[in-house]
Amino acid sequence: PVLCLKSIMAKSKFEYVRSFETDDTCLRNCYIVVRLDGRNFHRFSEQHAFTKPNDDRALGLMTRSARSVMEELEDIVIAYGQSDEFSFVFKRSSTWFKRRASKLMTHVASQFSSSYVFYWKEFFGEQPLLCPPSFDGRVVLYPSNRNLRDYLCWRQADCHINNLYNTVFWALIQKGGLTTAQADDRLKGTLASDKNEILFSEFDINYNNESAVHRKGTSLVWEKKDETVTKHMKLPNVEEKEVRVTRSRRRVEALHCDLIGEQFWEEHPDILEEEETC
Amino acid sequence: PVLCLKSIMAKSKFEYVRSFETDDTCLRNCYIVVRLDGRNFHRFSEQHAFTKPNDDRALGLMTRSARSVMEELEDIVIAYGQSDEFSFVFKRSSTWFKRRASKLMTHVASQFSSSYVFYWKEFFGEQPLLCPPSFDGRVVLYPSNRNLRDYLCWRQADCHINNLYNTVFWALIQKGGLTTAQADDRLKGTLASDKNEILFSEFDINYNNESAVHRKGTSLVWEKKDETVTKHMKLPNVEEKEVRVTRSRRRVEALHCDLIGEQFWEEHPDILEEEETC
Amino acid sequence: PVLCLKSIMAKSKFEYVRSFETDDTCLRNCYIVVRLDGRNFHRFSEQHAFTKPNDDRALGLMTRSARSVMEELEDIVIAYGQSDEFSFVFKRSSTWFKRRASKLMTHVASQFSSSYVFYWKEFFGEQPLLCPPSFDGRVVLYPSNRNLRDYLCWRQADCHINNLYNTVFWALIQKGGLTTAQADDRLKGTLASDKNEILFSEFDINYNNESAVHRKGTSLVWEKKDETVTKHMKLPNVEEKEVRVTRSRRRVEALHCDLIGEQFWEEHPDILEEEETC
Amino acid sequence: PVLCLKSIMAKSKFEYVRSFETDDTCLRNCYIVVRLDGRNFHRFSEQHAFTKPNDDRALGLMTRSARSVMEELEDIVIAYGQSDEFSFVFKRSSTWFKRRASKLMTHVASQFSSSYVFYWKEFFGEQPLLCPPSFDGRVVLYPSNRNLRDYLCWRQADCHINNLYNTVFWALIQKGGLTTAQADDRLKGTLASDKNEILFSEFDINYNNESAVHRKGTSLVWEKKDETVTKHMKLPNVEEKEVRVTRSRRRVEALHCDLIGEQFWEEHPDILEEEETC
Repeated sequence: PVLCLKSIMAKSKFEYVRSFETDDTCLRNCYIVVRLDGRNFHRFSEQHAFTKPNDDRALGLMTRSARSVMEELEDIVIAYGQSDEFSFVFKRSSTWFKRRASKLMTHVASQFSSSYVFYWKEFFGEQPLLCPPSFDGRVVLYPSNRNLRDYLCWRQADCHINNLYNTVFWALIQKGGLTTAQADDRLKGTLASDKNEILFSEFDINYNNESAVHRKGTSLVWEKKDETVTKHMKLPNVEEKEVRVTRSRRRVEALHCDLIGEQFWEEHPDILEEEETC
Repeated sequence: PVLCLKSIMAKSKFEYVRSFETDDTCLRNCYIVVRLDGRNFHRFSEQHAFTKPNDDRALGLMTRSARSVMEELEDIVIAYGQSDEFSFVFKRSSTWFKRRASKLMTHVASQFSSSYVFYWKEFFGEQPLLCPPSFDGRVVLYPSNRNLRDYLCWRQADCHINNLYNTVFWALIQKGGLTTAQADDRLKGTLASDKNEILFSEFDINYNNESAVHRKGTSLVWEKKDETVTKHMKLPNVEEKEVRVTRSRRRVEALHCDLIGEQFWEEHPDILEEEETC
Repeated sequence: PVLCLKSIMAKSKFEYVRSFETDDTCLRNCYIVVRLDGRNFHRFSEQHAFTKPNDDRALGLMTRSARSVMEELEDIVIAYGQSDEFSFVFKRSSTWFKRRASKLMTHVASQFSSSYVFYWKEFFGEQPLLCPPSFDGRVVLYPSNRNLRDYLCWRQADCHINNLYNTVFWALIQKGGLTTAQADDRLKGTLASDKNEILFSEFDINYNNESAVHRKGTSLVWEKKDETVTKHMKLPNVEEKEVRVTRSRRRVEALHCDLIGEQFWEEHPDILEEEETC
Repeated sequence: PVLCLKSIMAKSKFEYVRSFETDDTCLRNCYIVVRLDGRNFHRFSEQHAFTKPNDDRALGLMTRSARSVMEELEDIVIAYGQSDEFSFVFKRSSTWFKRRASKLMTHVASQFSSSYVFYWKEFFGEQPLLCPPSFDGRVVLYPSNRNLRDYLCWRQADCHINNLYNTVFWALIQKGGLTTAQADDRLKGTLASDKNEILFSEFDINYNNESAVHRKGTSLVWEKKDETVTKHMKLPNVEEKEVRVTRSRRRVEALHCDLIGEQFWEEHPDILEEEETC
C-alpha cells in the first residue's frame, strides 16, 4: 500500500517528461502527402520469388493494402502506387489527427503494413510469407493544386521510366538469353526511344500495348455509385411488397490512367479543392 | 517513343517537388524515444475476446512484435511495453537513418504492425485475426540520462496505476458479481491503499503477489550470452575431432522488473551512455 | 607556437558542434510573413511622452524604419504597420537567405531596430531617446493569395478596432474631463456604433473624417515611377547639348488605404503572384 | 457605424489566419545558444574606417551592446564575442519567452542592434554612423555541459586562428610594405607556427604578448559583488548617524581569458547547471 501511494506520487513526479514532446502540426491549407517505400524490397522480392519485371500478385497486394488505408483513415482523396511505393494524399482542409505529422504518417505506415500481412494469402495463396515486411514513410506538404498535381506526375513519370527499363531489361534476359550484366551493358546510355526500338524490333513488343497497371501504376479514388437494391416491405394490413431503394454509396476504385494530362482531372473534379480566386 | 522522351523530360520538370520535403533530423546527443499506441484497441480487444483484466496471449504478441523491431532496427538499447503500448529507445549517439524522425518512427510502426499480424497465430492459435490492427507513433527526445530514466519510470508508474485499478475492477465483476457500472461506482475516489484493501479483504488477493508481467510491464534489453557449441573438425591427415567453441552472442531478453529504483540500472550499465563529467 | 597548432586541431575537434544546428527552411510556394511587435512599448511610450491617442512622430519613425527594411532586404512585396507593430511579406517564390526562417526574421528585427534608433532624431528632433528599444518577431507562412489577404485584413481590422477605442477613450479624458478609470467604465460593453455616437454627439467628431493613417494604418508598396532627368551630353566635335532621359525606377510608397475590399488589389496587381490555374 | 460593425465581424472572420503560426518551442533541458553575425561587416568596417587588424572602438561597442542584451533579457549565463559576432547562452532550465526560438532570437537581435546605434557615440565620438547596421541570428541547442563548452571552445579557437592570420597579414602590409595581394600570397599554406615565426623574426612581435581581448575574445559573465554604501539614518529622538550597509549585487563582467582549459570553469561554477548523476 505504501508502495502504491508512492507510485501515484511517482507518476505525477515523472509526468514532466511529457513536456519534451514537440508539436509537429502540418501547415494549414496545404495538401498532406504521406509516401511509403518498401524497406529492402529488392531482397524481399527475391526471397519470395516475385516474377520479373512485374509480379501482379505483389502489385495486387500493395493496392489491397492501400485500399485498407483509404477505408480506415479519413480524408484521403487520392492514393497513387507503383512498384514498392504508395503515396496517400489528405485533402488540404483535413483536420484529421489535428494534422499532426507524426500521427498521420505512423498510422498510414502501420495500417498498410498490417494489411500487407493480413491480405497476403488472398494474393499469394499457399506460398508462405517468410518474414514481416516493413515500409518507411515521410510527410510532404504541397500548398497549391499545381504542386500536388506535379507531385503525382513526378511519381508517374518515375513509374514510366523504371517500367520501360525493366521491361527491356528482362526481355533481354528472359527472351534474349543475356545475363543480367550483359543486359545492363546493352542498355547503358540508351534513350527511351532506343528501348522502345529494342522491344519492337527484337521482341515484337509494342510498349504502348503493355499492361496499363505496369505502365501507369495504380490510382485509388473515391467513386460515388448509385446502388439499387430490392427490399421486401411488410406494412401492417398491407400485402408484402417489393420496393426498390436507391442509395448513393462511395467506394474506392482502382484506375490505371494517365495523371499528367488534363483528362483525369476533368473527370475527377472532387479531388482538388477549389482555390478561391483573388 | 515521342511519349517516352516527353516522360523523361517531364520527370525532371516535375522533380522540383522534392524540394518541398523538410528536414526533421533529431537533435544530436539526445535519446530518441519512439512510442507506439494501439488504435481503437478497446474495440479490438472486445472483437477478439481478450481476457480481463489481462490477456497473456495479447501481451505475449506485443512483446514478440517489439522483439522483432529490436532485432530488425539498429541502435535500440531498451524497449518497454505495457497494455497496448510499447516504447523504443535509440541510443543517444545513434546515427541510424541519419536520425531522421519520420524514418525512425514510421519504420518502427511498420515493423511492429506487420509482426503483430505475422506472429498472431503463435499466440492465438486457431482463433482468427478479424482485421488488420493499427498503431500510431510519436518521437520524443530526452537530453539527459535522468530524463530518459524518468520517461521509463513514468510509463511504469502508469502501468502500475492502471493494472491495480483493472485488477480490482474485474475482481469485483468476475468474483464479486457486480456490474461494470457498480464496479466503477465502488472504485470512485478510492486510493491505491483502498484498492489493495478491497483485493485483500474481499478476494484474498495480495496485489504484490500478482504476476510481475502485469504489475511491472515488459522491458526488453540486450543480454550478452556465452554460447558453447561442439563442432566436428576434420583437418587433413588428422583424425576428426570434436572441438568446443565459445562465442559471445547478444540476444533480446524480456524482464519484468522495477525500473524506478537503482538496482536495474546498476545491473544494466550498458543501456545509458556515459556522460562526460565537466 | 605549440599552443597555436593545438588551437587549429582544437578547432576541428570542436567543429562537430555545428551539426547541432537544425534546418528551418520555410515551405516553398508560400508567402513568408515576418511580424515585429514592440517590447514593453506601453512603458516606452510613457517614458518618451508620446501624444495620445496617436503620436505622429512615433508612427512616422516606425514607417521610416520599415522602409529601411524594405530597401535593404530583398523580395518584400508589401509591408503593413499600425501602432507598435509592422508586418513584412516576402513573395512566395523568394529564395532569399535560402528561405531560412531564423535568418529572415532576425535580419528584419535587426535592421528595423537599428533604423529606429538611427532615424529617431529625424522625427523627435532634440527630444532624446532614453534607452535602446526592442522588438520581437515571428514568421508565419501563408499558402494561398486568399490566406495572405486575410492576414493583412486581420491586422487592419485590429487597427480599426483599437483606434476607434483609443479615439473615444482619449476624447473622454482630454475633452470630456474624465479620469482613465471613468473613461474605461464608460466604454465597457459599448459597440462600435455606440463609440461612433459618443464621438459624434459629445465631441462633434465624425470618426470617418479622422486621419487615414490612424484609421487604416500604413501600407508600404513598391511603385514604379518614370523619372525624367536632363543630362548634358558632350560628344566629340559636336556642340554640347541637353538630352532628356527617362528611366523607370521603383521606390517605396506609403499608403493609408483600405486593404479589405477589392480596389487596392486591383490597383496593385503585382503584389500577389499569379497562381497557375489547374 | 455600419462599417465599424463590419470591421469587428471582419476581424473575427479573418482571425483564422492565427492558426497558421507554428510552435517552435526549444527542447527542454538543453542550453539555448543565440549567435549573431554582422551583415556585410566587411563593407561596414571600410565605410567607417575601422583600424586593422582590430578596431578597439568597434570591439568595445560590440561588447557594450552585448552587455545591454544580458541586462535586458533574462537567463543568459554567459555571452562570448569576437570580431563581428556574439553568442548568448540561455541556461538550460530557462523558461523565458516559453523557450520559443523565434521570440528569443529576434529579441536578442533587436536589442543588440538598437544598442549598437544607441551607444555608437560612446565609442566613436564625433565620427558619424553612416547607416543602420544589421545582424542576423540563429538558435542552436546543446543537450550537455560538454557540448556547450565545446561550442564556446569552437568560437574561441576560431577567434585565435583568425586573429593570428590578421595580425601577420596587417603587419606584412603596415610594417612590411606589402600589398594585400602580396600578403595573401606570402601567407598561403603557412601553418600557425610559420605565422608566429614571421611575426617574431620580421616584426619582433611575440604573438602571445598581444592583447588578450584580440587573442581570446570577450566573455561576459555575471559577477556577484558585495557593495558597501554609507547611508545617513535619522531615527526619531536620536541623533542622525551614518550606517554602513552591505548588499550583494550582480553585474556583468567582461573577461578575456581562455575558455578551453579547466581553470575558467572551475572559477565560474555557476555557469553550467549541475547534471544529476544517474
